[in-house]
Amino acid sequence: MKNAVVLLSGGLDSATTLALAAHQGFACHALSVDYGQRHRSELHAAERVARSLGAVQHRTLALDLTVFGGSALTDAAIAVPTEPSGGIPVTYVPARNTIMLSLALAWAEVLGSRDIFIGVNAVDYSGYPDCRPEYIHAFEAMANLATKSAVEGARTQIHAPLIALTKAEIIRLGSDLGVDYGLTVSCYQADENGAACGRCDSCRLRRQGFLEARIADPTRYRSPPTTPGGR
Amino acid sequence: MKNAVVLLSGGLDSATTLALAAHQGFACHALSVDYGQRHRSELHAAERVARSLGAVQHRTLALDLTVFGGSALTDAAIAVPTEPSGGIPVTYVPARNTIMLSLALAWAEVLGSRDIFIGVNAVDYSGYPDCRPEYIHAFEAMANLATKSAVEGARTQIHAPLIALTKAEIIRLGSDLGVDYGLTVSCYQADENGAACGRCDSCRLRRQGFLEARIADPTRYRSPPTTPGGR
Repeated sequence: MKNAVVLLSGGLDSATTLALAAHQGFACHALSVDYGQRHRSELHAAERVARSLGAVQHRTLALDLTVFGGSALTDAAIAVPTEPSGGIPVTYVPARNTIMLSLALAWAEVLGSRDIFIGVNAVDYSGYPDCRPEYIHAFEAMANLATKSAVEGARTQIHAPLIALTKAEIIRLGSDLGVDYGLTVSCYQADENGAACGRCDSCRLRRQGFLEARIADPTRYRSPPTTPGGR
Repeated sequence: MKNAVVLLSGGLDSATTLALAAHQGFACHALSVDYGQRHRSELHAAERVARSLGAVQHRTLALDLTVFGGSALTDAAIAVPTEPSGGIPVTYVPARNTIMLSLALAWAEVLGSRDIFIGVNAVDYSGYPDCRPEYIHAFEAMANLATKSAVEGARTQIHAPLIALTKAEIIRLGSDLGVDYGLTVSCYQADENGAACGRCDSCRLRRQGFLEARIADPTRYRSPPTTPGGR
């Protein structure tokens, strides 16, 4: 059984990615990063998800990116937008996926693993640059020059199996694989119990996904959400 | 005056790199990472070096890589070699430069800086894969797809000005730029006062460099070092 490192935020996409990696037969080592994110309940969600999907182990690494700030998720002074904005939103965290993948690369090398999974998505997403296929390919090329394993001939693969799926397709896939989305937290300003605001970009994309997938949305909202289309 | 992020370990190479970046007219924001390294006195050295070379600011980010281990520098159970070994030595820290550069990339984006300096060296070095020019180029290519700034058209440059220099050339360069190497700590097993063992790879390369540069070695050794060539 081959080891894989799976980046696990505690949200819908990374839970689906973990389920898929496990389904493909990998022994999954789940990695979360406590980077000072506003929605800290996603870290508790990650623990629950890792357990429920049979991860071999789950580690949460502390790395305080609030030292840098520059994002609504890492600077309390920047509000999370509750209306769609043009361009890349302020919830973008500078170089986040690069940092996460670098940490996964380190752990993978120690574990002797050649496979890293990340749940990025370039269809129903927020326009983040580090969710695009060309970025993932460039990271993989760099990774294959970066490590002792690479010099010794091993090839590391960055798996981004959701990258070309819509949110509805991701939800259908995860549901087929038995993901309990009630365990996951996507909301950028989820409260300490994981209850969602229903209004941020992440909530909107998630709710729209469940509607399109025609699957009941198990998300706990703090107040009744505004349904897309104003219904 | 343009901002630059300069990775500063507290060793000889990164001190020289900081001096060079300042000499080139950059306002230098120095970044150190407390990754649980065995030679913790290098972090104190980094503070002294940043101050003495006029860095605008110096931040030390905590990131506990001992959680992963896999290196003599991050796992107390793996001894630091005191004789030259074949291949990449056990002092190699998995994906270290990738992690460091990713953190620098994040900070640079927040600062609006397009310039990142790293003191890697591919001549008198320990054979680490993430010190080679092809690695630096691949990181730069990835970085220019990773960030919001990149999408908006800014180009980030990874400066590795020491990459093709010998240790002696680095020491001559830094001496000309006024670096006080007595402030720096290179030894992998420096004690809490920064006194060097004189026997690890890093000490050997450093001592040999001062000899070849015909510059007095200001390193404080715990006991008289064995001079290269057995003199």
